[in-house]
Amino acid sequence: MQDVDAVLANLDQELHWQRDLYKELHRNPELSLQEHSTAQTVADRLASWGYAVQRIGGTGVVGVLENGPGVCVLARADIDALPVTEATGLDYASTTTVTDTDGTTVGVMHACGHDMHIAALLGAAKMLADHRDAWSGTYMALFQPAEETAAGARAMLDDGLVTKVPRPDVAFAQHVMATEAGTIGTTAGPILSAGDSVRITVHGRGAHGSMPHNSIDPVVLAAAIVLRLQTIVSRETMPGEFAVVTVGASNAGSKSNIIPDRAVLLLNVRTYDMALRGRVIASIERIVRGECAAAGSPREPEFEYYDQYPLTTNDPDVSSRVTAAFNAHFGPGVVYNTSPATASEDFSRLPDAFGIPYTYWTVGSVPSDVYRTAVENGTVAQDIPANHSPFFAPAIDPSLGVATQAHVVAALSFFSTVE
Amino acid sequence: MQDVDAVLANLDQELHWQRDLYKELHRNPELSLQEHSTAQTVADRLASWGYAVQRIGGTGVVGVLENGPGVCVLARADIDALPVTEATGLDYASTTTVTDTDGTTVGVMHACGHDMHIAALLGAAKMLADHRDAWSGTYMALFQPAEETAAGARAMLDDGLVTKVPRPDVAFAQHVMATEAGTIGTTAGPILSAGDSVRITVHGRGAHGSMPHNSIDPVVLAAAIVLRLQTIVSRETMPGEFAVVTVGASNAGSKSNIIPDRAVLLLNVRTYDMALRGRVIASIERIVRGECAAAGSPREPEFEYYDQYPLTTNDPDVSSRVTAAFNAHFGPGVVYNTSPATASEDFSRLPDAFGIPYTYWTVGSVPSDVYRTAVENGTVAQDIPANHSPFFAPAIDPSLGVATQAHVVAALSFFSTVE
Amino acid sequence: MQDVDAVLANLDQELHWQRDLYKELHRNPELSLQEHSTAQTVADRLASWGYAVQRIGGTGVVGVLENGPGVCVLARADIDALPVTEATGLDYASTTTVTDTDGTTVGVMHACGHDMHIAALLGAAKMLADHRDAWSGTYMALFQPAEETAAGARAMLDDGLVTKVPRPDVAFAQHVMATEAGTIGTTAGPILSAGDSVRITVHGRGAHGSMPHNSIDPVVLAAAIVLRLQTIVSRETMPGEFAVVTVGASNAGSKSNIIPDRAVLLLNVRTYDMALRGRVIASIERIVRGECAAAGSPREPEFEYYDQYPLTTNDPDVSSRVTAAFNAHFGPGVVYNTSPATASEDFSRLPDAFGIPYTYWTVGSVPSDVYRTAVENGTVAQDIPANHSPFFAPAIDPSLGVATQAHVVAALSFFSTVE
Amino acid sequence: MQDVDAVLANLDQELHWQRDLYKELHRNPELSLQEHSTAQTVADRLASWGYAVQRIGGTGVVGVLENGPGVCVLARADIDALPVTEATGLDYASTTTVTDTDGTTVGVMHACGHDMHIAALLGAAKMLADHRDAWSGTYMALFQPAEETAAGARAMLDDGLVTKVPRPDVAFAQHVMATEAGTIGTTAGPILSAGDSVRITVHGRGAHGSMPHNSIDPVVLAAAIVLRLQTIVSRETMPGEFAVVTVGASNAGSKSNIIPDRAVLLLNVRTYDMALRGRVIASIERIVRGECAAAGSPREPEFEYYDQYPLTTNDPDVSSRVTAAFNAHFGPGVVYNTSPATASEDFSRLPDAFGIPYTYWTVGSVPSDVYRTAVENGTVAQDIPANHSPFFAPAIDPSLGVATQAHVVAALSFFSTVE
Repeated sequence: MQDVDAVLANLDQELHWQRDLYKELHRNPELSLQEHSTAQTVADRLASWGYAVQRIGGTGVVGVLENGPGVCVLARADIDALPVTEATGLDYASTTTVTDTDGTTVGVMHACGHDMHIAALLGAAKMLADHRDAWSGTYMALFQPAEETAAGARAMLDDGLVTKVPRPDVAFAQHVMATEAGTIGTTAGPILSAGDSVRITVHGRGAHGSMPHNSIDPVVLAAAIVLRLQTIVSRETMPGEFAVVTVGASNAGSKSNIIPDRAVLLLNVRTYDMALRGRVIASIERIVRGECAAAGSPREPEFEYYDQYPLTTNDPDVSSRVTAAFNAHFGPGVVYNTSPATASEDFSRLPDAFGIPYTYWTVGSVPSDVYRTAVENGTVAQDIPANHSPFFAPAIDPSLGVATQAHVVAALSFFSTVE
Repeated sequence: MQDVDAVLANLDQELHWQRDLYKELHRNPELSLQEHSTAQTVADRLASWGYAVQRIGGTGVVGVLENGPGVCVLARADIDALPVTEATGLDYASTTTVTDTDGTTVGVMHACGHDMHIAALLGAAKMLADHRDAWSGTYMALFQPAEETAAGARAMLDDGLVTKVPRPDVAFAQHVMATEAGTIGTTAGPILSAGDSVRITVHGRGAHGSMPHNSIDPVVLAAAIVLRLQTIVSRETMPGEFAVVTVGASNAGSKSNIIPDRAVLLLNVRTYDMALRGRVIASIERIVRGECAAAGSPREPEFEYYDQYPLTTNDPDVSSRVTAAFNAHFGPGVVYNTSPATASEDFSRLPDAFGIPYTYWTVGSVPSDVYRTAVENGTVAQDIPANHSPFFAPAIDPSLGVATQAHVVAALSFFSTVE
Repeated sequence: MQDVDAVLANLDQELHWQRDLYKELHRNPELSLQEHSTAQTVADRLASWGYAVQRIGGTGVVGVLENGPGVCVLARADIDALPVTEATGLDYASTTTVTDTDGTTVGVMHACGHDMHIAALLGAAKMLADHRDAWSGTYMALFQPAEETAAGARAMLDDGLVTKVPRPDVAFAQHVMATEAGTIGTTAGPILSAGDSVRITVHGRGAHGSMPHNSIDPVVLAAAIVLRLQTIVSRETMPGEFAVVTVGASNAGSKSNIIPDRAVLLLNVRTYDMALRGRVIASIERIVRGECAAAGSPREPEFEYYDQYPLTTNDPDVSSRVTAAFNAHFGPGVVYNTSPATASEDFSRLPDAFGIPYTYWTVGSVPSDVYRTAVENGTVAQDIPANHSPFFAPAIDPSLGVATQAHVVAALSFFSTVE
Repeated sequence: MQDVDAVLANLDQELHWQRDLYKELHRNPELSLQEHSTAQTVADRLASWGYAVQRIGGTGVVGVLENGPGVCVLARADIDALPVTEATGLDYASTTTVTDTDGTTVGVMHACGHDMHIAALLGAAKMLADHRDAWSGTYMALFQPAEETAAGARAMLDDGLVTKVPRPDVAFAQHVMATEAGTIGTTAGPILSAGDSVRITVHGRGAHGSMPHNSIDPVVLAAAIVLRLQTIVSRETMPGEFAVVTVGASNAGSKSNIIPDRAVLLLNVRTYDMALRGRVIASIERIVRGECAAAGSPREPEFEYYDQYPLTTNDPDVSSRVTAAFNAHFGPGVVYNTSPATASEDFSRLPDAFGIPYTYWTVGSVPSDVYRTAVENGTVAQDIPANHSPFFAPAIDPSLGVATQAHVVAALSFFSTVE
């Protein structure tokens, strides 16, 4: 692994600008599909290091560095921020705000660490460009918009990603998590669940609240559906198999004395298995239709699927190879086998579109002492702000350095060594 | 009303044998369609007084006394007892028992006062026979089996009642209630509800209790149905309109670790309106089918209707005429306007089969002081044993005398006076 | 009843300005407690006719006409409009709008006929003032704000109504309904239900949608409550007794993948009996608390009662006297016995505060042919826009004239005749 | 492993009497705690081979063979049959019957393969006794009654097992399953779930079916509980964690028109984790109590726990050692890593009482071609009769031979080799 040491030779110096860039990005977050300034920054940097840069899918950026024969490695970072009002109190905290659809103002915040994904991947990209003599192959640094809305990978694909860039042989992505800084979690097989959201509208018949007999009450109908949906997990799924059916929102009516004419349910489904996913969705539709029939509903229910995330399931061989490289580079105590998370990602759409294997790993970001104390006290859930929290504040060090090295090490584990 | 006085002239003497007969009947109750001894007693007495007696519908008895021109009055008493173990402690309490279908032994008891109905109607029949000079017309005393199972009126009709006896012009029935002895309740319009029982079998798929995913769980399905059925009264029925949907029994499974393959629900429906009854039954079927669809039930649910009681709704003119006659005879403080009761009866099948009007009244049976004290204390429900209670014990006096007179007075209010 | 004819002698001429006033009021509706212009119009007119006018309860107006010895009659009209965007297409339709709390703009409309109540009572007030020689007593014309929010009667009482005006002996109010124009509905006893609204907040614990085990799911909790509340009417209320428990709104959450931390239910309760009302409310609280306990809810549920309407129950003697006077004046085919309505009113707070009897009647407003055709076709519910509909458009004639006469006739039925 | 070959030298001959014994046991099954004849047979055979035999726990039998220094191995077979009417059509099928508590007659059948457990362990016991020169240590063959009712292991312990026999160092048990004959399934860690049954009685107040307002309806209460219990798995358990809450029976009422006064639920709980088990049981009680409070239940619910099975979790070291020995003896294609099963066993009470490690493995019993065809067709669930089925019919060969060898090999893997 002498090539790794060569490529990372200047890591400490590089981290200076990486830290500054991280803070700049954190201070200027941009919402999904609006990452114009972020994309410009990324594109400019990549171009300055010799990458052939394309803008794909609106605010997506791909930089390709062809460096002799060998495999083509795709490394992806997501770049969008969230509508969360930052409460970290950091001196580089975001003060950006947006006006919501209902007129209220909310903050915008890199509450999921995508700013660190950018800074780390750019660092890796620069070091690989600076040390082309240490490896042979093609490095493709891809910066994807709109991961938070499940729209960005699709947008890049819809804009012709597959035909616009060389076909990669393997793909990588990583994610900052609220685990111990300095550690990396890898696993073979499922690591992130498939996620599907469904907006269900069920129809009743409105009436004055004192005349229920003139109504078909959608409030009662929605309640019956919510309770019955519980049976998909409790009765229809094999015990111990992972499946989540959450009704995150159930809304009907606005006045006590008016029976409304419809109810809207927002469901979120999580699975690690595509066949099970299909059965769960079929069960949802069956239950909703049956309950509407029981209610005498005057119109068919409507199902609108949105925010659909694919399953993220790491290729065993790629995962094994990268994990071995991580262990070789970082030494003991850094890399651990992580359990599948219930969260979802749209990264896998990219390698799936190319038909190539991939692996996805996690990078810790909570200072060791803080994290270990919380674990000992059994207070991780209360004490450690998780992704999407207004208090989510990754420790820049050592997290950023580990994440940068991880991309370099993973790529080099596939590139040909230059003798 | 001098004819009333004439017919009732010997009431006090007659009550001696009536009381004895009442106690004999009470001591020897017979279950529905098994009232052989009771029917024989009734038939013998009627015949001895000059009635033309027929046995119709197995244990049904009709005695006809043709007594000159005029209207034909049908007076009906029901004669069956109940599978209830008597706990009154009376010296004439029943000690009769039967063995239930599951091998357990239960008592048989006149817990609904039909014994008093018999004794009163026989008393009226004898006095009308003894005083034929005081009236003109035809008196038909009908003793009907199996009121408790809704089978007796139908049995008599199926056996040709309509063709076997003269067509009556008006019909009467009365019922002993746990209200103040010495009072009579009358009303125009609905007095007893229509009653329908439904046995619903819903199908799932059995499985070992640890493998719910192999099952379609009928226990959960039945639970969903039971809760959803509540909405027929709470949401689909006009507020203030009388409707009852009771799930009297819900049974599924026998072992904790075996998911059964079906559930059986026994429903009871009560209404005062035939159109509403139809809507309620349609709603029950709609809800059950919808819930079965929601469950993915492998077979259609089954609906078996039984114990169906017709609506009892008093003809306003007949009711008014009889009420006036009662008031004239009994004087103030006896006759009151009663509210419709939620109970059901099969009496109305008889006049309905003839297409004639009818009225039905109630006779109190609780000693005045006991009843009034309970009313004052607000403890009627707790302190006064109601019909079907093992403690139901009508006060023979004055109840039996009032009930006897009521039949005589009602009949005479329709008979021609003999000048 | 020659005094009635005397007072109403100029009815046809008066109706000219009454119609104009009605249209002016209809064109310029004002929301509850904001009826400033309407109150000014009313006060000016009353003063011009010799009434002693007071402004009570903000936008409430009372005009008192003392006219010799005799009873004091209180006649009340409500004066507020509704946040409904008018769709009648009338040339005097309202174009007034307001901006709702959430920023949306809605119309304001006299969609409940209070404009006609004003015009009719003013007409009656003027004619009684013009013909003081025909009666003796005190006439008090009271114009109440904010009936639609249940706040107006209370506002007038809180402002000292009882001490500021003479004590009336009897009180009247009327309401325009979507029944046949030219008819009047009266009844003794309950005519409008008691109405209570309750805002219930139940607490869970929020979590990411993929981590239900970290949540206490308020969506499921609310669903369980909604279904269980159905049993108050279906199981706890005596069959045939009037009770309504409507969950008009059930709202929780806004995103599919976030389990919210609370749910809010808005309930509306209707009863005709204060004891039953108390039991229903107690049952609601019991059920909600029980379900929260079953859910392991981390905080007690909150119950906020609002929009509470009293029972409106007509005094039998007053109702009988007024009904007789109506029949004598209008002749056959106008006055009918109306069934209790499920709607609610705050009128009765006024006579209840004085401790005096009252009666309340309804006035039809749909052209006869239209109404009768709809009845024949069984399409009243679909074809006849009811109160609160954006299409509610009372036929001015003969409705306004009937309503005006009704107030005059009712008052005169209690005033001393001047010999 | 030459000692294994020595001990098993006469396997083919031994299998003759083992097959006959198996058929004799199969033809004469005995229910739990009534295994008198079976126990006698076992005791006689063990004694004849030189084992020191004790009867412990009624129908339990332990034979101890002390054979020099070394570890003490406990091998356990369960011996009871089930109340299932055999439908295999085998010439050695059971014709034994018993009369159930409700008077119905059902068959008795070795429907769970305990007959094969007996025959295999006796075979192993005899061969170890016959070849004492090939090993050193103590072999303890334990035949446990009443596995099917979770009562047998406890009965033996209650009767002093721990003090009556030498303390073993390791324990083994095996179970015949409906998998491919000739295979053995082993695993480290959890292999069978903890199982708990709960009888829950909830109290309402009975009433006539037409008078729900006089009742507290336990049918509705039970339905609400059943639906709410679903949330323990669907919302309270971490997705992917194994937990089962089955309501195997829900029973209330027997007549349509009588609202009963109680409902009885029989629940079965399965978990692989004792902490989770505790939380699930706490949640059940919380939900039931909350729902009873919501219903206004007049008495506290009652919880009666029964048929409680411990978790069966194989010691990793023991499992690894035995698996290696199996592989060495049987060669490739026989031993596979089996997934945890949702079923439960009371075997682990025995080693837990001694505080010793154990392992438990499964033995296939379906002819290879039949099983493989069903797997290929995806029809295993339909085509292969599972344990407890009236059609469960293990193929004697090669199953009995494999099961016999398994016990010998497992024991010898712990005994000292005799040089």
